Amino acid sequence: MTGRIRNRELRSRIVEAEEAAQLIRPGDNVGMSGFTGAGYPKEVPGALAKRVQKAHEAGDPIKFGLWTGASTAPELDGALAEVDGIDLRLPYQSDPVTRAKINDGSLGYTDIHLSHVAQRVWQGFFGKLDVAVVEVSGITEDGALIPSASVGNNKTWLEQADRVILEVNSWQSEQLEGLHDVYYGTALPPHRMPIPITHPADRIGSPYFHCPADKIVAVVETDSPDRNSPFTAPDETSARIAGHILDFLGTEVESGRLPRNLLPLQSGVGNIANAVLAGLDSGPFESLTAYTEVMQDGMLQLLDSGRLEFVSATAFSLSSSALDRFNRNLGDYRDRILLRPQEISNHPEVVRRLGCLAMNGVIEADIYGNVNSTHVMGSRIQNGIGGSGDFARNAYVSIFMTPSQAKNGAISTIVPMVSHVDHTEHDVDVIVTEQGLADLRGLPPRARARKIIETCAHPDFRPALRDYVERAAHASYGGHTPHLLDEALSWHQRYVREGSMRAG
Amino acid sequence: MTGRIRNRELRSRIVEAEEAAQLIRPGDNVGMSGFTGAGYPKEVPGALAKRVQKAHEAGDPIKFGLWTGASTAPELDGALAEVDGIDLRLPYQSDPVTRAKINDGSLGYTDIHLSHVAQRVWQGFFGKLDVAVVEVSGITEDGALIPSASVGNNKTWLEQADRVILEVNSWQSEQLEGLHDVYYGTALPPHRMPIPITHPADRIGSPYFHCPADKIVAVVETDSPDRNSPFTAPDETSARIAGHILDFLGTEVESGRLPRNLLPLQSGVGNIANAVLAGLDSGPFESLTAYTEVMQDGMLQLLDSGRLEFVSATAFSLSSSALDRFNRNLGDYRDRILLRPQEISNHPEVVRRLGCLAMNGVIEADIYGNVNSTHVMGSRIQNGIGGSGDFARNAYVSIFMTPSQAKNGAISTIVPMVSHVDHTEHDVDVIVTEQGLADLRGLPPRARARKIIETCAHPDFRPALRDYVERAAHASYGGHTPHLLDEALSWHQRYVREGSMRAG
Ligand SMILES: CC(C)(COP(=O)(O)OP(=O)(O)OC[C@H]1O[C@@H](n2cnc3c(N)ncnc32)[C@H](O)[C@@H]1OP(=O)(O)O)[C@@H](O)C(=O)NCCC(=O)NCCS
Ligand SMILES: CC(C)(COP(=O)(O)OP(=O)(O)OC[C@H]1O[C@@H](n2cnc3c(N)ncnc32)[C@H](O)[C@@H]1OP(=O)(O)O)[C@@H](O)C(=O)NCCC(=O)NCCS
Repeated sequence: MTGRIRNRELRSRIVEAEEAAQLIRPGDNVGMSGFTGAGYPKEVPGALAKRVQKAHEAGDPIKFGLWTGASTAPELDGALAEVDGIDLRLPYQSDPVTRAKINDGSLGYTDIHLSHVAQRVWQGFFGKLDVAVVEVSGITEDGALIPSASVGNNKTWLEQADRVILEVNSWQSEQLEGLHDVYYGTALPPHRMPIPITHPADRIGSPYFHCPADKIVAVVETDSPDRNSPFTAPDETSARIAGHILDFLGTEVESGRLPRNLLPLQSGVGNIANAVLAGLDSGPFESLTAYTEVMQDGMLQLLDSGRLEFVSATAFSLSSSALDRFNRNLGDYRDRILLRPQEISNHPEVVRRLGCLAMNGVIEADIYGNVNSTHVMGSRIQNGIGGSGDFARNAYVSIFMTPSQAKNGAISTIVPMVSHVDHTEHDVDVIVTEQGLADLRGLPPRARARKIIETCAHPDFRPALRDYVERAAHASYGGHTPHLLDEALSWHQRYVREGSMRAG
Repeated sequence: MTGRIRNRELRSRIVEAEEAAQLIRPGDNVGMSGFTGAGYPKEVPGALAKRVQKAHEAGDPIKFGLWTGASTAPELDGALAEVDGIDLRLPYQSDPVTRAKINDGSLGYTDIHLSHVAQRVWQGFFGKLDVAVVEVSGITEDGALIPSASVGNNKTWLEQADRVILEVNSWQSEQLEGLHDVYYGTALPPHRMPIPITHPADRIGSPYFHCPADKIVAVVETDSPDRNSPFTAPDETSARIAGHILDFLGTEVESGRLPRNLLPLQSGVGNIANAVLAGLDSGPFESLTAYTEVMQDGMLQLLDSGRLEFVSATAFSLSSSALDRFNRNLGDYRDRILLRPQEISNHPEVVRRLGCLAMNGVIEADIYGNVNSTHVMGSRIQNGIGGSGDFARNAYVSIFMTPSQAKNGAISTIVPMVSHVDHTEHDVDVIVTEQGLADLRGLPPRARARKIIETCAHPDFRPALRDYVERAAHASYGGHTPHLLDEALSWHQRYVREGSMRAG
């Protein structure tokens, strides 16, 4: 197994996870690798959690700041949240235990645009990063680090931390070497230069992380698998949403507003995203590219069929079967895939230059086109904003998609006023549900409301939405974006009180 | 006066404004020049308004789409809104008559990030631009157009319109020639290249607009002055807000988070902005630069004192006395000022690269740090989002500033939940009122609430805000961003009902 650690000096620092975890001091800010369940450390977090538990049992309330790329896995977020070991978590999570602790008020969570994280750490805005715990897939003779299944903020953690703990994971494919592109040309203003990417496939950095050996205080070996993303085959609702999006893209191409091979795709994860990608696989578009955050099953399928020429991402997010296929044939994919640091995969400059087609999920949208991506009933965080703002604001076309109902029809995802805003009307071009697609480009608020209600809302909820709009048109304080302040959030109140937004 | 029109062919197209206005067809989308009361056409809009009025009196309901750079003046927005001549207005306005028509529901208004406008017109997202009506300060021998006191979207209007009407304004200083930098290197993806600006003073374009002569269907002469921006000397509230910001900047420099000469300033207009700039004039910072939307009185003063080395903007917004001084001494300022198209002055890529310090006004902010820049009581539009989103999202530090109260204390500008969101918690680093400055960087929502209430809110409103937070902590559906849905907007309801947010 030590074959993965080709550097003699670093081989001498191999320790057990428990010993490595001792090198983290109470109160430290710890930057861990990990992005959508890929490339997170598998051993040290658990050892740290055990240490926390013992300390707490002994009456010592130790906690840590936990910074990552994005969401990780039960062995990391779950384990540390379970023992109340996290003081402040950033910038994104999707773990059930962590979520519960955040929402019961016992865990602080700062939700940040994924492209903002690295630069704000460089700027010193979040305080000092003390320790980095980063999974790599190997170490070369001369001590260069071969990244793992995600890049995320690892370059920044390795650079900013005083002490570095590496996990070398031999479960990861050896063929990952050479796949990554770690950009070392960033700087703080006034010394910043343009990011020289003009095509998703452009390589502008190094395939390795570089970290001074004297900062590396421990090396831990593991061969544990990544958390797999569950894959559910597209259901009918997702397939209909995908159909509307494909129709829309077709019309855009026909009318000359999009090139025949579209523009670089950005796609969130999940059922709907996979359905859209599956649709693209049988659609009319060829020579596609993706400039996105994560590569999911649907993208692999498009690579297999040859429709997709290139994927630039910061992490993989594959189901176990896709991952098997991927790891077996990694050699075939290698020159069509590239993983970058998340400050580059999500960089507003690059997203805008390339003109990404952004497709993201929502919790709910309102009749005026504001989008809530994060908070259920205005207060309970689900995951976080992630990269949706990086892409939506800077996209060529910004599409948000959701089933028209949630919780078996108890909830309308189209509401009079969203209970929390993550994407304002200005950043939302298209809203699509299984009911239809509302093209909002250029429309003022009242016209948007008509279009969203008649196109996207579930028919059961349309009469109530129309009624709201009509009454608001007369009784609103101002007529630009008519609202009835005492009713705007009443649908959510009803759900909280009665378990349904449907009128008695 | 025809000395300003040095091109013989275009001199032959001089007509009266009435005749030029006849070249605009009912239903046309008309792109007019104008940004913050500078460089808007002075003659044709009035003539068009007269024509509209006559047509309406004769039972012909003609209207036009009106696109500009940003806000204009009573002679343009006011005149056309007054006669109900505007069907759809975009992307920003601040005219009282227009505002009233928008809010009574008779005028459609699409509010757009100022950096988005040009590209979305190139992309064909707003439909065809039929006519451009653009003020220039002169025409050279070979037909190049010398821009006026604003650049705004003029390059785009001249390029996209089928027919072009020029107003040549001899009131504008002849010394404007050579001051502008019109970038002609833009393209649509997949052909976009980096914008090669790495310093506010970088010149990357042409000092002239270029427009095929055969599209120019009319030239109108005028010598009318620009609308002056009113200048009110900083009052005590503004001076205190400015003081807090200067203290903050000082601390950032001391702790090494900002260079000694800061980073390029972006500043909104108005009383508070001018107070901050006046504060900088007597503060410790030298060799300042600005990369901003408009150059206002305070910036001129900083140029005069030598504190400010360079201003890049898209328009002037000066009071009449400042404008006098400026026009008299334009030769002295010329190599320290530059006006660019607004897609460049506000470009996310450049704003982020340069690391602007963004300072913008708000209508209200909430305890969690969400900002409303546009809607009074959630429904009545004031102006529009303007460039605030372009700067806030991409800034090095994003500061929002407001007095803690409005309407003589009837309104708290710090509320439980903003009635409309333009800037989400993710884009708001600092909120400052005359009470104090809340540094929100890295804080999770509940900590933000404590800081904003105790630092920014007016003492009269603090007990009620604390009470809300305490009760929400117990009764909220979720505990990440605790809210009481039936009370969240009750402060606004009370104001609408009783004329005050203060409890009876
Ligand atoms: C918004 C988001 C949560 C939707 O995720 P998804 O997997 O498509 O949606 P699901 O339908 O599975 O919903 C997730 C949960 O939210 C619930 N939900 C969805 N809409 C809801 C609504 N309007 N009200 C209440 N609950 C809702 C679902 O019931 C489900 O709950 P459960 O886990 O208890 O069953 C997800 O897209 C997200 O986290 N987005 C923000 C980050 C982002 O956009 N990243 C993109 C990559 S750049
Ligand atoms: C938000 C904005 C309107 C504040 O403008 P300002 O000139 O600093 O603020 P003022 O205090 O003069 O307020 C303007 C009006 O809004 C009213 N107002 C301000 N806060 C209010 C509140 N919380 N509730 C109700 N009315 C409020 C004021 O009373 C005033 O009304 P009046 O004209 O009837 O007297 C202005 O900054 C804006 O339009 N911002 C959006 C665009 C932008 O940020 N551009 C920056 C350049 S990139």
